[in-house]
Amino acid sequence: MITITTDFGSPYPAAMKGVILKRVDTRLVDVSHDLPRQDVRAAAFWLRELLTEFPPAVHLVVVDPGVGTDRKVLIVEAGDHRLVGPDNGVLVPAGESLSDSPTYYAGKPSDPESTTFHGRDVFAPIAADVEADGIEAAVEAAGLKPVADPVRLEFPAPNVEDEEALGEVLVVDDFGNAITNIPGEFLEDLDGDWLLVDGRWTRVGRTYATVPPGDPVVTIGSHGNVELSVNQGRGDDTFNLEAGETVYLVRTD
Amino acid sequence: MITITTDFGSPYPAAMKGVILKRVDTRLVDVSHDLPRQDVRAAAFWLRELLTEFPPAVHLVVVDPGVGTDRKVLIVEAGDHRLVGPDNGVLVPAGESLSDSPTYYAGKPSDPESTTFHGRDVFAPIAADVEADGIEAAVEAAGLKPVADPVRLEFPAPNVEDEEALGEVLVVDDFGNAITNIPGEFLEDLDGDWLLVDGRWTRVGRTYATVPPGDPVVTIGSHGNVELSVNQGRGDDTFNLEAGETVYLVRTD
Amino acid sequence: MITITTDFGSPYPAAMKGVILKRVDTRLVDVSHDLPRQDVRAAAFWLRELLTEFPPAVHLVVVDPGVGTDRKVLIVEAGDHRLVGPDNGVLVPAGESLSDSPTYYAGKPSDPESTTFHGRDVFAPIAADVEADGIEAAVEAAGLKPVADPVRLEFPAPNVEDEEALGEVLVVDDFGNAITNIPGEFLEDLDGDWLLVDGRWTRVGRTYATVPPGDPVVTIGSHGNVELSVNQGRGDDTFNLEAGETVYLVRTD
Repeated sequence: MITITTDFGSPYPAAMKGVILKRVDTRLVDVSHDLPRQDVRAAAFWLRELLTEFPPAVHLVVVDPGVGTDRKVLIVEAGDHRLVGPDNGVLVPAGESLSDSPTYYAGKPSDPESTTFHGRDVFAPIAADVEADGIEAAVEAAGLKPVADPVRLEFPAPNVEDEEALGEVLVVDDFGNAITNIPGEFLEDLDGDWLLVDGRWTRVGRTYATVPPGDPVVTIGSHGNVELSVNQGRGDDTFNLEAGETVYLVRTD
Repeated sequence: MITITTDFGSPYPAAMKGVILKRVDTRLVDVSHDLPRQDVRAAAFWLRELLTEFPPAVHLVVVDPGVGTDRKVLIVEAGDHRLVGPDNGVLVPAGESLSDSPTYYAGKPSDPESTTFHGRDVFAPIAADVEADGIEAAVEAAGLKPVADPVRLEFPAPNVEDEEALGEVLVVDDFGNAITNIPGEFLEDLDGDWLLVDGRWTRVGRTYATVPPGDPVVTIGSHGNVELSVNQGRGDDTFNLEAGETVYLVRTD
Repeated sequence: MITITTDFGSPYPAAMKGVILKRVDTRLVDVSHDLPRQDVRAAAFWLRELLTEFPPAVHLVVVDPGVGTDRKVLIVEAGDHRLVGPDNGVLVPAGESLSDSPTYYAGKPSDPESTTFHGRDVFAPIAADVEADGIEAAVEAAGLKPVADPVRLEFPAPNVEDEEALGEVLVVDDFGNAITNIPGEFLEDLDGDWLLVDGRWTRVGRTYATVPPGDPVVTIGSHGNVELSVNQGRGDDTFNLEAGETVYLVRTD
């Protein structure tokens, strides 16, 4: 099985699928092709959340603002999972979630046909090789070397004290939920109670339906983090928050 | 085979796919992940139209504005098809189209990991169980009971007389066709002729191309209902109609 | 394997998938369902670029502004590939890329159930027949005849001289890259240099990253044509160009 994740929209992912299926007869699963465009950190967040749900597979990932530059190709061996993508940090958080001790292989690929579509000409062929021939053979064929220091990106750390938390919106999902980096534990014992979100009293609930449709609510999202939502509406609009913006929570026990 | 239908957009459906594939090796088919957000009636309409095209399968459906509330889980046994989703009415019209005497099983699931993502934590595992172990075992594992009275939603009934029909737009499709609840028979013998749509004379045709590109046309849509369209354009814009709005047709034989 | 390409968006492609899977147990691959709506030329361009990446397959294509008119059904036999779709020119460039001597079969299908959804009622069943029974049997079942003259559409030819090229934007991709019909050779030896694009000096580069994020750049795209782009931005916005508009390049060696 090869899963495919990109920020390509349509129809470029089809070229990658064709390239893979020409080389190996395997199941393809689309994870997403609509990740926020060229946002490596958002992609790293989603991959960490999503790939851990999958059985062992080859995970092909192309969110690659540096296509055609000197950035390397990275293969991550994480337990029985193999991740293939650019060495720009996008694979590492998922790799570390899938295994306590992932192994990394990196290198510059030999000159591909195109300098603008490495998804088709570099990453898809390598993913197919990993699936067909195993990681050792694929690493050798691609001319990669074991490395200890893949490119890492930092998720911003929240500043959490007893009654205050200063965090950041990591991503906004398609429903408009603003997913922060503040751990859900900050909401402990607050279910049904109120909290200050950027100075605004907001209800805390285990579910969106804690509040009437259209009202804002603070929940622990499915990722375990504090999420700012609106029941059957959009949290990002109501709280006026985008990915990358800070958010300040105050409890008053 | 498991088909998957949601209003999730991207990338949450991937979490459900991973959960299923961890449990059972089966074919997955995406029906849609772009159904109108949290619109149970629109989803029920589309499922009734679409699932009847499929061979026997497990159909996993998550359009679920009441996630985390007391709404139950529903499994529908409809001929050789099995439908899994929330007990909010979304599954029933499709179940009744697939079988003259569908059987229903409902119940509250035991506490899932998350209170906001039952697609991943409740419905996908049950669908995988139905596919892997059969409906009886899955019903028992989920703690469901046979019920005679699943939650039903009413599609609005049109008011059709000899020369007049007062109906409602059920859904607007991606092409902008406004699909009404008025049966296509109302257009009998009118092919090529004219009809009043909300007071406006409009051509009736078997195909969009009955009229020049850009012109409005009334057709019998692929669902068998009266559809308000524009050849190579958008009917919803031209007729100024949205889902849920009424439409009034007058024939003048 | 059957690949599926449409301009349907969601959820109509699911009806086609159901129809196919009811008839034949085969792998389905979505190429795209988001091609520019009813733009036969854009679809023909994308199919020529994308289908050539695939291993031998049946390729089902429905971009069909003339649905319900007299336009015929076309099957193209191109090497080991088979293409099924409307006889409106959409299949021919891909067929000619896949084979030096494609064979064409065309005809009016017998009256389908619906006059507005031939994807479900005409093309999907024929594609399933080709996959299940082979092209000969499918051609006979559909009542098609060999033809030498399928409907052809012309891609506009660029006017390229030594130092000037007058071309046209064929399509704009999801990243906003304006893909022209000017062959990449026109940029020979210009890497890193400057070029006049509609009177504006623009950098030429092998990669988007030749210029800082936000700056315009002229590249040879993955299709081999001249592409007008912005590094991590949208070329169509910056160059103010849409599909079908002309573009004028001047080199000054």
